[in-house]
Amino acid sequence: MSKLIVVGIGPGNYENMTIKADRALQSCDVIIGYHVYVDLVRERYSDKEFLTTPMTQETRRCQMALDMAKQGKTVAMVCSGDSGIYGMAALIYELRGECSEPEVEVIPGLTAACSGAALLGAPLTHDFAVISLSDRLTVWEKIEKRLESAAAADLSIVLYNPASHGRPDHLSRACDILLRYLPEDRLCGVVQHIGRDGENRRLMSLGELKSAAVDMFCTVFIGNEMTREIAQNMVTPRGYRDV
Amino acid sequence: MSKLIVVGIGPGNYENMTIKADRALQSCDVIIGYHVYVDLVRERYSDKEFLTTPMTQETRRCQMALDMAKQGKTVAMVCSGDSGIYGMAALIYELRGECSEPEVEVIPGLTAACSGAALLGAPLTHDFAVISLSDRLTVWEKIEKRLESAAAADLSIVLYNPASHGRPDHLSRACDILLRYLPEDRLCGVVQHIGRDGENRRLMSLGELKSAAVDMFCTVFIGNEMTREIAQNMVTPRGYRDV
Repeated sequence: MSKLIVVGIGPGNYENMTIKADRALQSCDVIIGYHVYVDLVRERYSDKEFLTTPMTQETRRCQMALDMAKQGKTVAMVCSGDSGIYGMAALIYELRGECSEPEVEVIPGLTAACSGAALLGAPLTHDFAVISLSDRLTVWEKIEKRLESAAAADLSIVLYNPASHGRPDHLSRACDILLRYLPEDRLCGVVQHIGRDGENRRLMSLGELKSAAVDMFCTVFIGNEMTREIAQNMVTPRGYRDV
Repeated sequence: MSKLIVVGIGPGNYENMTIKADRALQSCDVIIGYHVYVDLVRERYSDKEFLTTPMTQETRRCQMALDMAKQGKTVAMVCSGDSGIYGMAALIYELRGECSEPEVEVIPGLTAACSGAALLGAPLTHDFAVISLSDRLTVWEKIEKRLESAAAADLSIVLYNPASHGRPDHLSRACDILLRYLPEDRLCGVVQHIGRDGENRRLMSLGELKSAAVDMFCTVFIGNEMTREIAQNMVTPRGYRDV
C-alpha cells in the first residue's frame, strides 16, 4: 500500500510530538525532510531509511517523497511545527494534483504559536493573527498590510521567520509599522529554540523589540491591549474573571 | 511539591495528544476540568481523582485547581485543544497573581486550527487569523472589526465558536461582513467533532457557508485569495512551486 504521511513533529523535542506522529515515524519505511528536521528525529527512529534535501529545494523534496511512496514504500515527510502551517502539506497536494495515488495523510503537530505561547505564559487567550516576515515567497507590501490590519483590529500577533541572514532588519521594519498603531510599552515576547538545546524566552516592550536580537530560530509574540505581565509571564486575559 | 499543570489535550482522541500531555495525566493526582473534556480522558486515566464543573464556572474551576495544588497535590487542569488558545492558562496565572505557589506549568496541545486544517487538507499554509464568534466575553463590534480587517488583508481565517444555542445566527452575520470584502465563491471548509465520534468535514463556498448548519462543535476555515480545491481538499499554496 503506497502512502505518504506528512508529519508535523512539533518544536523538536520528543515530548512535544503527538502520539500519532510518533507512531507514524515508527511504522514508516522512509523519513524525508529538510536536514535540520530529519536530524531531530534520526536517533530515535534509527532503523529507517533517511533522505534529506537543502532548505530551498521544497519542490524537489516533495516530488521525491511522492515518487518513493508510489513505489510502494510508506514515506514520512517531516515538518517542523505543524505539517500544514507554513509546512509542506499544501505543496504535496499541489504536486499530486487530481491523482488519488499515493494516498496522502496529514498529521498535525504543535505549531510555534502554541508551543511558544506556553513558554511565555498565555499570550494567545484571545483572537490573534499569525504572520510570516519572510518575503521569499510573499511581496513585502502584503506583509505590511497584514501587520497594519492586525494591529488596527487589536489582534495579538505571532510573527514567524522574524529574521534571517538575508533579511536581518525585517523585525525592525515590522515594529515601525506596528508602532503607528500600538504604544511603545505594548508587552511582547520572544522565544528561541523552542524544545531544543538553548531554549530561552524574553519579555520586552514593543519599543525594545524594535532593536532586539532575533534570528530564524525565534518566534515573536505581540500582545493585544489587555496583555500584561504577571509573575514574569506574558498573559492575555480572555475576560472570564468578570463573568 | 505542589504543582498545577494546565494540559491541552488536543481535539479529544488519545492519538492527537502530545507525549508530554499523556505523561502529565499519568503522573498527576487529580484531573479537573469542564465535564465534557474530563469525560474524554476519564477511561484511560481511571485511577485518578476527578473533579468537574459546569461550562460557565471557569473562575471557580481554576480556583479549585489552585487550592488543591497548594494542598500538595499534583493537579492537571484539562483544556480541549490548546491550554492557552481560548484555554484556561491565562485565568490560572491571573488568579495566582504575583505568588510563586503553586508552581504552574502550561503544556500546549493541538488547537483546532491545526487539527481541523489537517482534516480539510492544507488551508493554513500562509498567514491567517484566528477569531472567536462568541460574544459572551467580547463585544460584537470588536469581532466585526477583526473580521473586516482579516478579510481586507487577505488573511485566511479560522472561526472558533461559530454558533451555540444562544447565538445560532453568528456565522451568518459574520459571512455578511466577510462578503463585503470577499467573493461568494471563496473556498471555505467546516470541520465538526474533530478526533471524536462523528468527525466530519465539508467544503463549500463562502456564499453557501452563510446558511450552513453549524454548532458549537464546529470550526470554520475561510481561504485566502489563492486557496483552491485539489482532489476534494482545501489547499492554500505558499508559493513554493514557483521557486
